[in-house]
Amino acid sequence: MPAPSARTRVARLPDRGHYDPADIHAILDAAFLCHIGFILPSDKAALGASEAMPAQPCVIPTLFGRDNDHVFFHGSAASRMLRTAATDIQVCMEVTLVDGIVLARSAFHHSMNYRSVVVFGRAQIVTEDAQKRRALEIISDHIIPGRWQQVRQPTAQELKATSVLSLSLSEASAKIRTGPPKDDEADYVLPIWAGVLPLHQTAGNLIPDPKLPQAIPAPTNLKPRS
Amino acid sequence: MPAPSARTRVARLPDRGHYDPADIHAILDAAFLCHIGFILPSDKAALGASEAMPAQPCVIPTLFGRDNDHVFFHGSAASRMLRTAATDIQVCMEVTLVDGIVLARSAFHHSMNYRSVVVFGRAQIVTEDAQKRRALEIISDHIIPGRWQQVRQPTAQELKATSVLSLSLSEASAKIRTGPPKDDEADYVLPIWAGVLPLHQTAGNLIPDPKLPQAIPAPTNLKPRS
Repeated sequence: MPAPSARTRVARLPDRGHYDPADIHAILDAAFLCHIGFILPSDKAALGASEAMPAQPCVIPTLFGRDNDHVFFHGSAASRMLRTAATDIQVCMEVTLVDGIVLARSAFHHSMNYRSVVVFGRAQIVTEDAQKRRALEIISDHIIPGRWQQVRQPTAQELKATSVLSLSLSEASAKIRTGPPKDDEADYVLPIWAGVLPLHQTAGNLIPDPKLPQAIPAPTNLKPRS
Repeated sequence: MPAPSARTRVARLPDRGHYDPADIHAILDAAFLCHIGFILPSDKAALGASEAMPAQPCVIPTLFGRDNDHVFFHGSAASRMLRTAATDIQVCMEVTLVDGIVLARSAFHHSMNYRSVVVFGRAQIVTEDAQKRRALEIISDHIIPGRWQQVRQPTAQELKATSVLSLSLSEASAKIRTGPPKDDEADYVLPIWAGVLPLHQTAGNLIPDPKLPQAIPAPTNLKPRS
């Protein structure tokens, strides 16, 4: 198991920290939405404002995909970030899967069951067309396996209009909480209900596009990976 | 309706932007998890590393609550952030509710239905005990209304061990996508299924703490707000 770096080491509640790539990959593969944090430098943070503004932390939610020890993301996240750098940008990628609300006997020990991953690193712009196309296929397959092969592929113009970023998982850590609440010993005698309210993301019935001819049936792969 | 500030104005796909506090509050109240982005300054980013490191964007997931035009959050998020500032810290708070995967006929027009909020501002440390206690009650009630009154209240020592931050919603914007895919006109004749795969978060059956005496029934309010 690789040693955590100074910035990926889980500082608070260190027994919840995991650094094994298999643990990190499993969490990433059960999710499709990530949050990307980056710094908008002071001169660009103004975005046309008249007064100067300090460097600004920004967080953008976006879809992503994983290929071995890299993740890829694209679109609006990339485009706002790309204003700040020509070839790469320092980011913090965060993924959280909520598994439940932990209801303790004391207000203080209430918590959440979750699986989360944090990745630090420099996101690199993918410029080469074939690599870009492959990265988009990876993102698509990560969300709905097999969908990429069922749809119209990107044109050269669409590919040009799409920004894709790649991020190495070399500095990543996971944090996991499971199980019942942990109350103070003295509180276990209190007549207060305690336990876990489990939460999960579920898919509903497919809603066909109103413009879809009746004759086209839904493919059987249309379920998200999680 | 208040005008957006330079940094809250939705730059990409501006027709998805909403600035009415009622829209913003509704999204915040349907969520309980947020992602807080902040900047770890260069000297603190090292966290004990031998070489100097540049300023580092950080993203931390955390529970939150809303009271009128402010949100509150606490705990580990606050403690890591609080290493970087004595009284307040510039943050970007992001909340995303995923409503579905939008399946278009072209790879390019695949999308997500979602409701999201971004808040920029300086998060202030809540120092006064009564205000801190009130903020924790607001966070608790935001997640499980009524729970706060059912559990053991924080002791003075627990209150001291808990960091609470307050953030004004004065610079906030929402972004919403709903409805079917929007394909290129030429693609509507393609024999490709298109539509929306709806997603929602659902609660499972309560799991009682194994240490709970049989005689204590679960209160009826134990359902999350969403």
